[in-house]
Amino acid sequence: MIIVLKPKATKKEIDHIIGKVKKLGLTPMVSKGIERTIIGVIGEEDAIRIQPLDVYPGVEKVLTILKPYKLVSREFKKEDSIIEIGKGVRIGSKKLVVMAGPCSVENKPLLLKIARSVKKSGAVMLRGGAFKPRTSPYSFQGLGEEGLKFLKEAKKKTGLLIVTELMDPRDMPLVEKYADLIQIGARNMQNFNLLKEVGQSKKPVLLKRGMSSTVKDLLMSAEYVLSEGNFRVILCERGIRTFENHTRFTLDVSAVPVIKNLSHLPVIVDPSHATGKWGLVAPCAKAAIAAGADGLLIEVHSNPEEALSDGAQSLLPENFDRLMNDLRKIAEVVGRSI
Amino acid sequence: MIIVLKPKATKKEIDHIIGKVKKLGLTPMVSKGIERTIIGVIGEEDAIRIQPLDVYPGVEKVLTILKPYKLVSREFKKEDSIIEIGKGVRIGSKKLVVMAGPCSVENKPLLLKIARSVKKSGAVMLRGGAFKPRTSPYSFQGLGEEGLKFLKEAKKKTGLLIVTELMDPRDMPLVEKYADLIQIGARNMQNFNLLKEVGQSKKPVLLKRGMSSTVKDLLMSAEYVLSEGNFRVILCERGIRTFENHTRFTLDVSAVPVIKNLSHLPVIVDPSHATGKWGLVAPCAKAAIAAGADGLLIEVHSNPEEALSDGAQSLLPENFDRLMNDLRKIAEVVGRSI
Amino acid sequence: MIIVLKPKATKKEIDHIIGKVKKLGLTPMVSKGIERTIIGVIGEEDAIRIQPLDVYPGVEKVLTILKPYKLVSREFKKEDSIIEIGKGVRIGSKKLVVMAGPCSVENKPLLLKIARSVKKSGAVMLRGGAFKPRTSPYSFQGLGEEGLKFLKEAKKKTGLLIVTELMDPRDMPLVEKYADLIQIGARNMQNFNLLKEVGQSKKPVLLKRGMSSTVKDLLMSAEYVLSEGNFRVILCERGIRTFENHTRFTLDVSAVPVIKNLSHLPVIVDPSHATGKWGLVAPCAKAAIAAGADGLLIEVHSNPEEALSDGAQSLLPENFDRLMNDLRKIAEVVGRSI
Amino acid sequence: MIIVLKPKATKKEIDHIIGKVKKLGLTPMVSKGIERTIIGVIGEEDAIRIQPLDVYPGVEKVLTILKPYKLVSREFKKEDSIIEIGKGVRIGSKKLVVMAGPCSVENKPLLLKIARSVKKSGAVMLRGGAFKPRTSPYSFQGLGEEGLKFLKEAKKKTGLLIVTELMDPRDMPLVEKYADLIQIGARNMQNFNLLKEVGQSKKPVLLKRGMSSTVKDLLMSAEYVLSEGNFRVILCERGIRTFENHTRFTLDVSAVPVIKNLSHLPVIVDPSHATGKWGLVAPCAKAAIAAGADGLLIEVHSNPEEALSDGAQSLLPENFDRLMNDLRKIAEVVGRSI
Repeated sequence: MIIVLKPKATKKEIDHIIGKVKKLGLTPMVSKGIERTIIGVIGEEDAIRIQPLDVYPGVEKVLTILKPYKLVSREFKKEDSIIEIGKGVRIGSKKLVVMAGPCSVENKPLLLKIARSVKKSGAVMLRGGAFKPRTSPYSFQGLGEEGLKFLKEAKKKTGLLIVTELMDPRDMPLVEKYADLIQIGARNMQNFNLLKEVGQSKKPVLLKRGMSSTVKDLLMSAEYVLSEGNFRVILCERGIRTFENHTRFTLDVSAVPVIKNLSHLPVIVDPSHATGKWGLVAPCAKAAIAAGADGLLIEVHSNPEEALSDGAQSLLPENFDRLMNDLRKIAEVVGRSI
Repeated sequence: MIIVLKPKATKKEIDHIIGKVKKLGLTPMVSKGIERTIIGVIGEEDAIRIQPLDVYPGVEKVLTILKPYKLVSREFKKEDSIIEIGKGVRIGSKKLVVMAGPCSVENKPLLLKIARSVKKSGAVMLRGGAFKPRTSPYSFQGLGEEGLKFLKEAKKKTGLLIVTELMDPRDMPLVEKYADLIQIGARNMQNFNLLKEVGQSKKPVLLKRGMSSTVKDLLMSAEYVLSEGNFRVILCERGIRTFENHTRFTLDVSAVPVIKNLSHLPVIVDPSHATGKWGLVAPCAKAAIAAGADGLLIEVHSNPEEALSDGAQSLLPENFDRLMNDLRKIAEVVGRSI
Repeated sequence: MIIVLKPKATKKEIDHIIGKVKKLGLTPMVSKGIERTIIGVIGEEDAIRIQPLDVYPGVEKVLTILKPYKLVSREFKKEDSIIEIGKGVRIGSKKLVVMAGPCSVENKPLLLKIARSVKKSGAVMLRGGAFKPRTSPYSFQGLGEEGLKFLKEAKKKTGLLIVTELMDPRDMPLVEKYADLIQIGARNMQNFNLLKEVGQSKKPVLLKRGMSSTVKDLLMSAEYVLSEGNFRVILCERGIRTFENHTRFTLDVSAVPVIKNLSHLPVIVDPSHATGKWGLVAPCAKAAIAAGADGLLIEVHSNPEEALSDGAQSLLPENFDRLMNDLRKIAEVVGRSI
Repeated sequence: MIIVLKPKATKKEIDHIIGKVKKLGLTPMVSKGIERTIIGVIGEEDAIRIQPLDVYPGVEKVLTILKPYKLVSREFKKEDSIIEIGKGVRIGSKKLVVMAGPCSVENKPLLLKIARSVKKSGAVMLRGGAFKPRTSPYSFQGLGEEGLKFLKEAKKKTGLLIVTELMDPRDMPLVEKYADLIQIGARNMQNFNLLKEVGQSKKPVLLKRGMSSTVKDLLMSAEYVLSEGNFRVILCERGIRTFENHTRFTLDVSAVPVIKNLSHLPVIVDPSHATGKWGLVAPCAKAAIAAGADGLLIEVHSNPEEALSDGAQSLLPENFDRLMNDLRKIAEVVGRSI
């Protein structure tokens, strides 16, 4: 940590800061430059990170040398983490993982139909919400446990593993029972109690980036989960909020290589929520794989006109199938397979 | 609702849409312009809002005429809502309400000291977090129930009413017991289960705007609370995320008059979290009152250097006192009082 | 155009608006719904677009049916535009166009060295700035005409066509003399006088998206160029400003298919300026081609450590060469070639 | 400047960097911490700022200690700059300066009417565009020199000083002849050639913040003007681009105190362009003055319904008059006058 002092910081102010640093068991190193005096702090940066140093008289700004997260960082673990979900599905390996299905579980026959179809096209996991975060209280809120049961049946019939969202810590036992991968949605990325809850789960976690979260925020939220003992976390880029309004959000495709540099955790991309328009899903899915993503989360619906949520961004099964064919070839170019 | 068709929409496509509209019990009105045919829909717009109409063949875009929220809107209730908190504190009335106190409750003597001081300066409510949403799992997470007890004691000794944050639906009974006003934090603004929970509470709710939420999103979240039966909601602008990084967030001061136009609910402003720097709190607090806010939420700490959270944005009691004097005069200019 | 009236709009207000619409030679169609009366306007929307209708008493909002741009739109021209630059270089065709070279022209031997190298790797155009827009007045501002002469010589020696930026209408004769493609930089995307100037040029124009411009803004700026008679415009996505700060800007990869839907003009991507970090250029370049871009603009420098501008985002020639090999394969997957 | 090295930086890499720093005539100070080695650089930071140090092998990141601007900074000049415009108008003094008038000059009688009216209400400068930056090529582009002549006549008749926009360096002689204060619009804030041009002018400059510019960017652009010799610069906050769409831009009111901390230059606010809606102008104007702005730029039009540009955001003269009365009282609270 580097404490940059104001041009006119007094000796008394400097001594006050030095005293503080020493009291925390750290070593201050004062260095007088031509225009500024700075104090380098040697020792466990964490000890001082929580101190509001910028508030000390004479301080102009504080620069941090280390990253605020540990367990999720490449420095903590150099090799890519490969997360085992079960039945041979391993996220972060050479083999890309595609999760597909409807936005929300609506009824059993429809779910089975979509599940069979995406399985045939090459998906290995089925997505589908039983509890739905909807911006309007008047929209369909999900089937609850009934939806989870339908997912279980689809799993039995197709062999697809299940990823579904947890919204409320009170639903944890239920979701844990049915899901192979527990999703934390973008709107709950900083619901810290929920993060702690899944941090204590035995199930792996799919953590979606909040729409106004920096990559650093996302990694800090993942740190919550790991710090509770659950190291099986997969990150998901799903678009951030910007001024552009032709798309629902703006897919931050560069977040994929950025995260890969900073963290050992796998990263997948959700082009359906990022764009909000089915016509943009295929180009963005291809872009994600070309940029190095470890997998995709894609909405597929056999009758988008009647979908109870997010019909506008759902691919028809035939379009999904075509996309999977293209993805297979792009995967090869970047040294992966599907 | 207006459905704008593509230039080359076929008769079959148009008939398909018309059929759909009629099936929903609504009346379609087709109007052929020079460059586009449009279909106006007469009837309950809600019936059709949930349909993904943009996905229908031949549809170019869908324009909505009505707002997606009802109970919170000015159209539903013309007069400003005045929310009674208790002991004469009424938010939304001519008398502005200032809530002040530390970011988090740290210990009893400190809390009492700050409470007495802000009371003397003119605050009528005490803020202080017992459960703290922190971006790092390694930061101070709050005292929990002990913190709530300290708040209760401060209330007993000073007469200040209590506003404190609820983060987890499982803490509801606890928070409801101690708080006069339950705060939903920015990071939980779209935690819809939590919104439903406070919607069923007898306590009024302070709903903070999410950092990436539009005013419309904020009103939709408030609609969740009202639709569950709790009409005592106060909105709070606390800065949005932008590219500017001299401040932690960007205070959207124009949101105050914007919300006042759209909704009957009171609006207060939190300049401490919006700016993240104590030196900017006073100018922004004055701006908020000048723009028509119904009150303020301000962090005050008697020893910011030792604060366990957000010390950098906390005002010293003497600065808070000076600010209150200025605010009194500005309030008068805009026809209010403190 | 649809004029939505306030719930309490009076007959006098409605008549006033109807009178206005008729005076403009247009036909108003009044339609009374349950909650709102709306007035549809039939005729040339442009006639009324410039009127500040929202300011009329009784008006709640105004919805536009048509897009504000014409010449650049898909409706004006259905087929993809293919822009001939010369010597067989055609942007927008099946063959992707890669433009590469240093950020700014620094000296002749270096430029020639880089030019030869990128040519060998498959680039068909050479980029290099002679006039540089720098945020600091104390940074290197470019060599001016001397730089243009070096570019000309590099063209003579390698056959690469030249793309270079015009910053000032007074430099037009100079830049027109040397450039095969005139670049308008992101910071000048709404420098309307400059747009009119290149609109009257015989040379094709590369128009870069402003960092805070929506796709609509970009198309409106292109419309300026086309409306002056120059239809040879290529659009360039180069990152927009967001809150994310691991990258200099956020590459909006979905803008590629979005623009392709709305306009017939070709779109290329500049991953170097979008990310600001050479390590992110390759994944983002691949993503751009996978998403359907017609080409790329990439910074290459043989000695980034000594580059006078943007060294941090420049690829080494060997990395560029490796990237081109990958791009060739991805191009094939999406039905293109390099 | 602090160069933070990667955990595994080799001795050779460190020596390479040290050699570079020394070659620039600066003194490197190596400091080995527990987790990172850092190199502090003592001497003129500017010498090394332009080097792309992040590109050197072994470098993790580079932290700058000093600000990239000089002449505009508080460190260069401690006292507030007061800019004399003429006839007793001094911006940055205790007396606030209000500039008002139509968006664009449309015709002489109208301009005179508005000028007389705003003068009566207390404005001391008349705004009005003769050259208009319009996003659409089909919108009214301004009257050119004729408009400037009308402004001159309005000045003669009312005594109001003139502020008007320069868009093209070729119009400089013309604008310089008529304007008392030359405006550089938001879209040209990074048109560096235009900045250099006004930097050589004898007339003071009103520099508007770009819609996607940070405060730092704004100060860097002002530095361009000062570095050319013109120290009479006034900054103007006019809203930045965010995801919120109830307003045209988001007024960043905290930018006022932020700029005041960093720079000695005066800051005014334009609430008309920031909000785009006349109903929001008054609350935002009051907020700006409460936050410490040195003045305002406000659009006033006696017949907004017929305005050729920006009618929706123009105040009627009677509303402007009422606003001025409120502003006078708020000014007093913050120790100023109008």
